[in-house]
Amino acid sequence: MKKFLSQVDDLIPDSLQGLALAHEAIVQLNAEPAFVHRRVHKQDRVALVSGGGSGHEPLHVGYVGAGMLDAACPGQVFTSPTPDQWMAAAHAVNAGHGVLFIVKNYAGDRLNFQMASDMLDDLDHLMVVVDDDVAIEHSPHSTGRRGVAGTLVVEKMVGAAAEAGAELYECKALGDRVNGATASMGVAFTSCIVPESGVATFEIGEQEMELGVGIHGEPGRQRLPLAPAREIVDLLLAPILKDLQLARGREVLLHVNGLGGTPLMELYLLNHLARRRLTDEGLVVARTLVGNHTTSLEMAGASLTLTALDDELKALWDAPVLTPSLRW
Amino acid sequence: MKKFLSQVDDLIPDSLQGLALAHEAIVQLNAEPAFVHRRVHKQDRVALVSGGGSGHEPLHVGYVGAGMLDAACPGQVFTSPTPDQWMAAAHAVNAGHGVLFIVKNYAGDRLNFQMASDMLDDLDHLMVVVDDDVAIEHSPHSTGRRGVAGTLVVEKMVGAAAEAGAELYECKALGDRVNGATASMGVAFTSCIVPESGVATFEIGEQEMELGVGIHGEPGRQRLPLAPAREIVDLLLAPILKDLQLARGREVLLHVNGLGGTPLMELYLLNHLARRRLTDEGLVVARTLVGNHTTSLEMAGASLTLTALDDELKALWDAPVLTPSLRW
Repeated sequence: MKKFLSQVDDLIPDSLQGLALAHEAIVQLNAEPAFVHRRVHKQDRVALVSGGGSGHEPLHVGYVGAGMLDAACPGQVFTSPTPDQWMAAAHAVNAGHGVLFIVKNYAGDRLNFQMASDMLDDLDHLMVVVDDDVAIEHSPHSTGRRGVAGTLVVEKMVGAAAEAGAELYECKALGDRVNGATASMGVAFTSCIVPESGVATFEIGEQEMELGVGIHGEPGRQRLPLAPAREIVDLLLAPILKDLQLARGREVLLHVNGLGGTPLMELYLLNHLARRRLTDEGLVVARTLVGNHTTSLEMAGASLTLTALDDELKALWDAPVLTPSLRW
Repeated sequence: MKKFLSQVDDLIPDSLQGLALAHEAIVQLNAEPAFVHRRVHKQDRVALVSGGGSGHEPLHVGYVGAGMLDAACPGQVFTSPTPDQWMAAAHAVNAGHGVLFIVKNYAGDRLNFQMASDMLDDLDHLMVVVDDDVAIEHSPHSTGRRGVAGTLVVEKMVGAAAEAGAELYECKALGDRVNGATASMGVAFTSCIVPESGVATFEIGEQEMELGVGIHGEPGRQRLPLAPAREIVDLLLAPILKDLQLARGREVLLHVNGLGGTPLMELYLLNHLARRRLTDEGLVVARTLVGNHTTSLEMAGASLTLTALDDELKALWDAPVLTPSLRW
């Protein structure tokens, strides 16, 4: 296992310290229980709290800041945050208008969040569950579809609405709407190594790819022979387009996400190919985001995410954001 | 070779198209000869042009935009841009105050740039050569030290000065000063695969690391057994600190750079460890940048860069920047 590590147990706390030091104008770390929150808390607004297993950075801790999350709870690598993390983060950032939780649809995340929710009966809160992954209907880790790179889109758009003063029920409805308008699918070329285990999460041959891979390296739809990039783009977009059923002329957001180990050059290549394919379908790519945003440690691979846009969603996407890893 | 690729020959042009599409408000692509330039050109200012082999993205094409470069010339992977690229880019962005070229110290880059320079006698221009890599004094690719991740620091600071109206000779002097105040060193855990060759650039064992590696996978100082992260940080910082000879209390910029295949979590861990070590040395880390900025395709590894700051350099670093991959 070739990683920058001293003690495995120190990796997450030390890494969170490193994040907080690098972005001390934007975020602060609460060490125990662990959550990252804005340095300057929002006043008189709905607060947004997200979280999930570590190893997907910058999701979620890199998206805390003005225009996006108020706090994020990092679990152990690929492991759900604990109820006390969710509760402490919610109490810390609640500004009197309630807390919206954004949770990816995994059994562990749902369960731990539910325990927190049961104990938060003194705090007005609602939850948006993100399940944008169209690769499979159920997985060993989830009942129903999994939440993957579309989570960023939900966090960005709802973050903008909360910043602008939307009430809790409006933020919840918006989050559900963005989730429903969003579909993703990924492909992996290599596995990844969870530091605590020291071994590859799955085996994959030199000429194989895992289509529809999950962000923890869990199986997808199909193990296929490696294919040219333009074929891969077609394989990823077909189920996304089938799911979203977009009319010709519809504006979309295209998010090309790297899983960690794929160079930016290849992600831009995918953007070029996906744009061409979507244009051929009569869609208008009105907004684009390319980069390593929802990762699986050092996994080589990528995912494509589409969100069907309208004027409201475009304005929410365009609204200013200032976080460690997303800013405009 | 597991890469997103259709035809090897299409990779760079298609990837550049993908970059331009993703950031069409900021940059435009000139396809032939290939260079990326600002969508809105600066008026009445010195223009900054950089470039180098592809495969180091986001360097340099991701740093074109307000407050940084006016144009960047991408060569083939790990191969110098050609003289006609340098010349076309310079003519395109020259705004009557001359052009400053920022070139990393590699034999091929220097040679190709020199040919361009000889043919640009109708255009007022100067060059800054970046050679921040303290790992080795000479290399198979360079006479003298190599230019690595410190190039970003030079491009950012000189970009801010040019934006503010500095004249050509002032930009040149500043670039030389920033380069002199900057020192870097890197370490690799894995090799990388140049798409045109399809094979790993070098071999490295499962328990080895290459200390002082170059950004093309060329050899460094020493092949060592894998070590804990805090020891690696000490091994990287010792030659940097020896080179810069900083007095206690001096403010520095710390840039933790990923070589492509190392997760952000580990880069933040390195930031935490490096900050602690520098603080122990009596230095004040006044500015920090963490991320995959000067990469070697999918290589796992990282580099540390220090720049000795003063009030002028801090202000130049803090000045607004709006590029595809650096913005504040």
